[in-house]
Amino acid sequence: MEKPKESNVDRLRNAILDMVHEMSLGFGDKLPTEKEMAERFQVSRPTLREALKLLEQEAVIDVHQGKGRFLAAGALLNIARPITKFESVSQMVSSHGYVAQTQLLGFASVAADSVTAARLSLPEGAPLIRVERLRSSGGQPLVYSVDWLPRALFGTAFETPDWSGSIVAMLAEMGRHPVASTANVRATLLPPDVAELHSLQAFGPALLIEEICYAADGTRVIYAMDYHRGSAFSFSFVRK
Amino acid sequence: MEKPKESNVDRLRNAILDMVHEMSLGFGDKLPTEKEMAERFQVSRPTLREALKLLEQEAVIDVHQGKGRFLAAGALLNIARPITKFESVSQMVSSHGYVAQTQLLGFASVAADSVTAARLSLPEGAPLIRVERLRSSGGQPLVYSVDWLPRALFGTAFETPDWSGSIVAMLAEMGRHPVASTANVRATLLPPDVAELHSLQAFGPALLIEEICYAADGTRVIYAMDYHRGSAFSFSFVRK
Repeated sequence: MEKPKESNVDRLRNAILDMVHEMSLGFGDKLPTEKEMAERFQVSRPTLREALKLLEQEAVIDVHQGKGRFLAAGALLNIARPITKFESVSQMVSSHGYVAQTQLLGFASVAADSVTAARLSLPEGAPLIRVERLRSSGGQPLVYSVDWLPRALFGTAFETPDWSGSIVAMLAEMGRHPVASTANVRATLLPPDVAELHSLQAFGPALLIEEICYAADGTRVIYAMDYHRGSAFSFSFVRK
Repeated sequence: MEKPKESNVDRLRNAILDMVHEMSLGFGDKLPTEKEMAERFQVSRPTLREALKLLEQEAVIDVHQGKGRFLAAGALLNIARPITKFESVSQMVSSHGYVAQTQLLGFASVAADSVTAARLSLPEGAPLIRVERLRSSGGQPLVYSVDWLPRALFGTAFETPDWSGSIVAMLAEMGRHPVASTANVRATLLPPDVAELHSLQAFGPALLIEEICYAADGTRVIYAMDYHRGSAFSFSFVRK
């Protein structure tokens, strides 16, 4: 999934994490002062505090009253991306520090099988578009994805879009911006035929995220299976 | 992690999911009426509605005003356990439909290395207890776990506890009940030496959850690495 817009606060949160990486801060290290960070990022203090609050809630930062903000031990776990954040695969890949290229492996018009139809809340046999892509960085394959979209979204123009670009951005332009998803994660290997066809035998264990993406009006616009290379990605979350 | 108590509403939520499995309900199928479910589960209507509301929020159930409750397409994804729920490995294993046996592979008193010390917010070299266990069902290995606990929690009695039982229940009895965690998930293989030593070569890809567990007062009481057999488990979540 791609998501064209990220709120200022989210962007700032990510910039603070980048700063933590750049400064090689470890557990117990003090972050720069509010004043220094507001200047560095050219943002207002209230916006900065909102982003810092997010990181505090994610247990990345500990606040010691009167002393400042310190990197929490949890930061080691939490600097990975929150698994509960809806964002594009491209954003997720780049936030892990990779510069990604997208390779279009194929697209086709297909009839929905029973499972895919149920995922997209469509009748069995409904026309879908199936898009198969590979994200790589420096020649290393990172994410193998298959996306299914209702054919009806595209009118007669489904061969026109540039499928190597952001599907979410494309949907947003069509007024169908995906804003949330329900998802499922497990560990698996790439399907053997896929690994062979695309020379991905060395991909290793994959974190498979299956996802149904919803537009703001609740309609289902994408069903996606994203295989994240296990050695390259991890995701964080809080359990209560 | 073990968690001794589950709220009535959570328990009822899980019982409703079990019922959905038992009745082999699929997408679009109607659930029994509120009256039928209240009788079946011997609970009050407000408690029942609270559990159903949870399932609605998790996109397992669709409510059609005046018509009743129906299994949502998302149910197929969401009947897996929410990854954001803090619960014991035993509870999680049994909610996936397995009857688990716990095998104690080893325990030892060790000095904290830098990473483990940071995870538990202790100085490097602090004394820890390391517990290594395997959950299986019907002879099939399901979860390989290593837990580290601050030695200081146990006074001089650390050899006494029954490490094949619930660590969380044990901590609860000691007034250190873990109530939440920060965690990280990735796909990997078992460490080769572990696989060989414990004859787990056929375990396959694992969903590794690394977790820092917190007692109610915010102290860190467990650092755990749980390798979930990929072919046996999946977890659900919502992205926004």
